[in-house]
Amino acid sequence: MFGNFTYCNPTKLYFGEDALQGLRTELPRYGGNVLLIYGGGSIRKNGIYDEVLALLREAGKTVTELPGVMPNPTVDKLYEGVRLARESRAELLLAVGGGSVCDYAKALSVSVNCREDPWEKYYVRFEEPDCPTLPVGCVLTMAGTGSEMNAGAVITNPGTKQKIGHVFADERIMPRFAVLNPRYTMTLPHYQMVAGIYDIFNHICEQYFSGEDDSTSDYLSEGLMRSVIHSGRLANRNPQDYEARSNLMWAATWALNTLLSRGKSTDWMVHMLGQAVGGYTNATHGMTLAAVSLPYYRHILPYGVEKFRRFAVHVWGIDPAGKTDAQTAQEGLQAMESWMRELGLVMNTSDLGVTPGMLPGIADATIVMGGGYRRLERDEILEILKESMQ
Amino acid sequence: MFGNFTYCNPTKLYFGEDALQGLRTELPRYGGNVLLIYGGGSIRKNGIYDEVLALLREAGKTVTELPGVMPNPTVDKLYEGVRLARESRAELLLAVGGGSVCDYAKALSVSVNCREDPWEKYYVRFEEPDCPTLPVGCVLTMAGTGSEMNAGAVITNPGTKQKIGHVFADERIMPRFAVLNPRYTMTLPHYQMVAGIYDIFNHICEQYFSGEDDSTSDYLSEGLMRSVIHSGRLANRNPQDYEARSNLMWAATWALNTLLSRGKSTDWMVHMLGQAVGGYTNATHGMTLAAVSLPYYRHILPYGVEKFRRFAVHVWGIDPAGKTDAQTAQEGLQAMESWMRELGLVMNTSDLGVTPGMLPGIADATIVMGGGYRRLERDEILEILKESMQ
Repeated sequence: MFGNFTYCNPTKLYFGEDALQGLRTELPRYGGNVLLIYGGGSIRKNGIYDEVLALLREAGKTVTELPGVMPNPTVDKLYEGVRLARESRAELLLAVGGGSVCDYAKALSVSVNCREDPWEKYYVRFEEPDCPTLPVGCVLTMAGTGSEMNAGAVITNPGTKQKIGHVFADERIMPRFAVLNPRYTMTLPHYQMVAGIYDIFNHICEQYFSGEDDSTSDYLSEGLMRSVIHSGRLANRNPQDYEARSNLMWAATWALNTLLSRGKSTDWMVHMLGQAVGGYTNATHGMTLAAVSLPYYRHILPYGVEKFRRFAVHVWGIDPAGKTDAQTAQEGLQAMESWMRELGLVMNTSDLGVTPGMLPGIADATIVMGGGYRRLERDEILEILKESMQ
Repeated sequence: MFGNFTYCNPTKLYFGEDALQGLRTELPRYGGNVLLIYGGGSIRKNGIYDEVLALLREAGKTVTELPGVMPNPTVDKLYEGVRLARESRAELLLAVGGGSVCDYAKALSVSVNCREDPWEKYYVRFEEPDCPTLPVGCVLTMAGTGSEMNAGAVITNPGTKQKIGHVFADERIMPRFAVLNPRYTMTLPHYQMVAGIYDIFNHICEQYFSGEDDSTSDYLSEGLMRSVIHSGRLANRNPQDYEARSNLMWAATWALNTLLSRGKSTDWMVHMLGQAVGGYTNATHGMTLAAVSLPYYRHILPYGVEKFRRFAVHVWGIDPAGKTDAQTAQEGLQAMESWMRELGLVMNTSDLGVTPGMLPGIADATIVMGGGYRRLERDEILEILKESMQ
């Protein structure tokens, strides 16, 4: 049954080679104090930093810099940002970077005026903000997470080895605007590019592999998956293919801006497993997903044969003639595996630094969510994690 | 090449059987004077009028009624609305009805404070509003036009036999909120239901059959078309199938809220032909599209064989083995024709009241737009219109 839902996604997107010019329209809408948030400094090398700063100066902004946001932003970094945003009286949080930087800015948005410990409030108790939030803008330099058009923010607590995402229920926490220039993604190393491609694909899978419903959302997911498979192949062969990189950047946004889950259930277990692996290894997000997803999907396939069969036929073009549904379904996952190997993804968790001794801890750190074709017991999680090491 | 573009679609959608409760959240955001706009009175029979009015009263609104918006809203009706909105000092235009009522409310939104003749300004000179606009909300009772989440408004001038759509370039003209309850569409006559289904499908076609680009938008279009084909069949067999009607309602919104055209060219010639037929016959919008689309697409197929072949394979599942591209492409349009006949659509313009004597006038009234695989000459338009009569 198509469920009741709301949809509202007001983020203004500027897409294309001239997208940064959108800052000329957006910056005057906010106050004069801007907190400029970025990561390890790659934007200083590729010139994006200079371009952004020139536009901020042109708009007469007072800029405070907050560099050093790491790939898995930590709770200590969040506390540092809260102090800096308060001291500088920030009125706009401008994130320039990939999904981590954008996630971090959103976590900061709800934390600056929070009177409690934001980790406890948002990532332990999963509460919604009851304080004023700060507007976030984003200049995206990597395609994958979809953070540029949603209200989610993942934060890692190294002390407790927890990497936890909170999708806030309020569209005010979505970036007000996002600049999407596919050229900005072209200086990324191949490893990061393909990790992002798999992140996109997996976001769609998480919303697709759930429910017995007949839903328009699943048809949209199939179309988007086909686009990612196709453009992923082109970008893998030639990372300078602007059209392929554009399609991937656009697909990333739509893979996780809530559209694909409207009216249906979802199953985020691959992300839960991947994030638990990430909490122990600090590995690249997309690669943790790649390493655990096939063991997980092969484990649950018997409980959702019909959907895995549909996936095989509609997404991978498997001919079902003369095959059992289970055979067709298996062939779909084989086709997915071939594509993943073609991209050069990390296909097991050993290569990400997971050791047998970590498995019980990772299993304990894995949040079990409903919505999938099978609700996992702890021994099944351990079994999937063991499979993922091979 | 994936082009530069912006995307912003802030309409808040409330979807499902309880969607009308969204008015409780929305109404307090606007001033006390509400202009309640509706059509021929069907909402009085099916109880929607009473439900809406009760919520307006609960919110303490002063309500002025503007009934009688016709299926093809006229410029005289627009002038009437301008007078009434001014007299009542309307602060919110609440449209309760189908696409025509919603279109009308948007046309009114940009006209109330307009110092010139709005027909001349917006539908002859195609200018953007330079006056304050009024916010529009929408309670949708028919799925098809997508008017609930875009900035388009079609108005008809019976004096000049012109039916013209203007898609405004400003997201402020999109409805601020829309209530989408699939049950509300279930009291529609079968004729109106299938006309709406074809309207949805054709909106996707208009954005799909254009360009040589490799674009994510086309993959999304293919997914959405497959959903409409599937749910259209189910709804045709059983109009009380809530899931099918839900999918159709949701697909209608996404077929024309600008998503599917991002980064690519489009070809709106079927709408131009259909609207010219509508200006002469006052026929139901979706049926005018149904009657002209196959003659048009068969005419341009030789100029876009590759895309029509892709349509056949990706959307209709035609097996291309052992066939020329043109044969495969033709089979796609045959499959589309079979589906249209199954739905019971009007397949020729004679059945809509077009006579041979009208053809030169309709041809003259047809606006020729670029973007398609073939830019039509007047004799080609006449030829397509002649074909459409059979």
